[in-house]
Amino acid sequence: MINKRQLLAERPKGMPNESTWTFVEETVPALKDGEILIEQSHISLDPAMRGWMNDARSYIPPVGIGEVMRAGSVGKVIDTQGDTKFKVGDYVTGWGGVQQYYVGDGSGFVQIESNPDNHTKYLGVLGMPGMTAYFGILEVGEIKEGDVVLVSGGAGAVGSVVGQIAKIKGCTVIGIAGGPKKCAYMTDELGFDGAIDYKNENVVSGIKRNCPKGIDVYFDNVGGDILDAALVFIRKNARIVICGAISQYNTTTGMQGPKNYLSLLVNRGSMKGMVVLDYVDHYREAMQIMAGWMQEGKLKAKEDVYDGIENFRDTFYRLFSGEKLGKLVLKIKP
Amino acid sequence: MINKRQLLAERPKGMPNESTWTFVEETVPALKDGEILIEQSHISLDPAMRGWMNDARSYIPPVGIGEVMRAGSVGKVIDTQGDTKFKVGDYVTGWGGVQQYYVGDGSGFVQIESNPDNHTKYLGVLGMPGMTAYFGILEVGEIKEGDVVLVSGGAGAVGSVVGQIAKIKGCTVIGIAGGPKKCAYMTDELGFDGAIDYKNENVVSGIKRNCPKGIDVYFDNVGGDILDAALVFIRKNARIVICGAISQYNTTTGMQGPKNYLSLLVNRGSMKGMVVLDYVDHYREAMQIMAGWMQEGKLKAKEDVYDGIENFRDTFYRLFSGEKLGKLVLKIKP
Repeated sequence: MINKRQLLAERPKGMPNESTWTFVEETVPALKDGEILIEQSHISLDPAMRGWMNDARSYIPPVGIGEVMRAGSVGKVIDTQGDTKFKVGDYVTGWGGVQQYYVGDGSGFVQIESNPDNHTKYLGVLGMPGMTAYFGILEVGEIKEGDVVLVSGGAGAVGSVVGQIAKIKGCTVIGIAGGPKKCAYMTDELGFDGAIDYKNENVVSGIKRNCPKGIDVYFDNVGGDILDAALVFIRKNARIVICGAISQYNTTTGMQGPKNYLSLLVNRGSMKGMVVLDYVDHYREAMQIMAGWMQEGKLKAKEDVYDGIENFRDTFYRLFSGEKLGKLVLKIKP
Repeated sequence: MINKRQLLAERPKGMPNESTWTFVEETVPALKDGEILIEQSHISLDPAMRGWMNDARSYIPPVGIGEVMRAGSVGKVIDTQGDTKFKVGDYVTGWGGVQQYYVGDGSGFVQIESNPDNHTKYLGVLGMPGMTAYFGILEVGEIKEGDVVLVSGGAGAVGSVVGQIAKIKGCTVIGIAGGPKKCAYMTDELGFDGAIDYKNENVVSGIKRNCPKGIDVYFDNVGGDILDAALVFIRKNARIVICGAISQYNTTTGMQGPKNYLSLLVNRGSMKGMVVLDYVDHYREAMQIMAGWMQEGKLKAKEDVYDGIENFRDTFYRLFSGEKLGKLVLKIKP
């Protein structure tokens, strides 16, 4: 049985290119005792992947050169050997990587429902991005009813959930995204109170227009100039959640720091980083609450699904080009 | 009676210059009902004064053009009219401004002890800088025994007190300052565990040498490259207290943001701003505790006192040139 895989070939400087990954076809090895074989149907593409490729101290070790590229995945257990964590026929989600078949002890995987219509949800709203949104806005952002919440990447996998949770909790929510389609998605489908199209509007003006009284919580997925614009408008005791900085991940000219950070002093604000892995013991509870909101129609999620493991690199670029709406997923089961 | 005063003449771009203040001699007006006359002996020179000169949204209104320059002061009540807050002979501290005589209702002033040897202490360790240090490191920094605490401006009015309080609370304390004299002051007189001389040593190397396990709390008075260096070494759940950014106050080329701020994400760190005015209701308690520490010899403070209200501008420059040790004070009573 042939396993198509994308291996990290070299550490990119700036945006990954044709030399970054090697696409290989390898024979699936025989299972050892305690191992399972997962046929993976979908992998998750997330901005965090870019960080995992750098040889830098971070919250998890970098992907090694020659190793399969790390990625969240969903799939079905199709073989087992000996005493194993899962049985044949189980559907699971975990860190299967950018490959068609996963072989290992299944550590880090959890079982999911069998309905295939919902499987990609476990890479999005019920997966890492959804958990990031849930714990980020509730535990780090500490939102309370009546807060004005601004979220960048508001049409994306994390931001769209952040905004909807804030709406559920009684906040006023303004989203920032690129282009009229994403902005309409935020206001018309997700129920945000306002949208700022950073590709067609000055963000400072947009925040001023939408948040005349300032911002209580800013959930930042992008960094750069948008973070600086948000800092201008924070209110007293505002919280800034640092979830990501997609505008900066592929920089080759040096990171751009928030030059308006002294607004934190003037307004007694805080800027706090978060890593979703810290909340793993509470994922189950969060997933139950979020699934309930979905059933009630209060929480919507969209996946933007592309096809073919050989298209991994081109699909990866969509994370940074803005050409996707919702959670970016790659279907890898032919 | 003639009142020598320094009035704000124009808003400086970058470092204040000869056109920034106008030095005038005016006749002290007659007191109105409820007013007091204070003969001021000393004024406080603080980096925050630079911010008060900018026409920008901040935690207090800017000093108006043509108004006396705002400054903390100590003095003696020498006349009163009608029913007043203080009586003749009282020694007081408050916001008397850069002038020899204060006339007003005394709002914001509090009475202090009569021993003149201690008066400058009320501009330093028992005044705004001391309160800033106390609430900044305890309430915002949330230090606990065993923490590694790094403080910039460690020989200055705020930083020297921050470090000593952290030592009292059982922390390991490393100070950053410019020049061997200040570094010796921190380790030999104040009892810091280590010193980094940013004028003669790479700060990144200095932190690595002094804090091999990283930093739990960084108390920042300076911003710029030193803040970035500290961000490299923060440990998980580290707290960065943003108290000031003296390296950036006179910039004419734009503020330098902390380009390493994503270390907050990786390390789940927080960066939080503070303004000492928020703690005014607790000043008295803090002053009692700090006075106790001083009596026990655990808390030392040094004032660097210059002379002459006409020398205000030249003395002000010392805030930014590094040519002072401890709290910068100007004696204005001839």
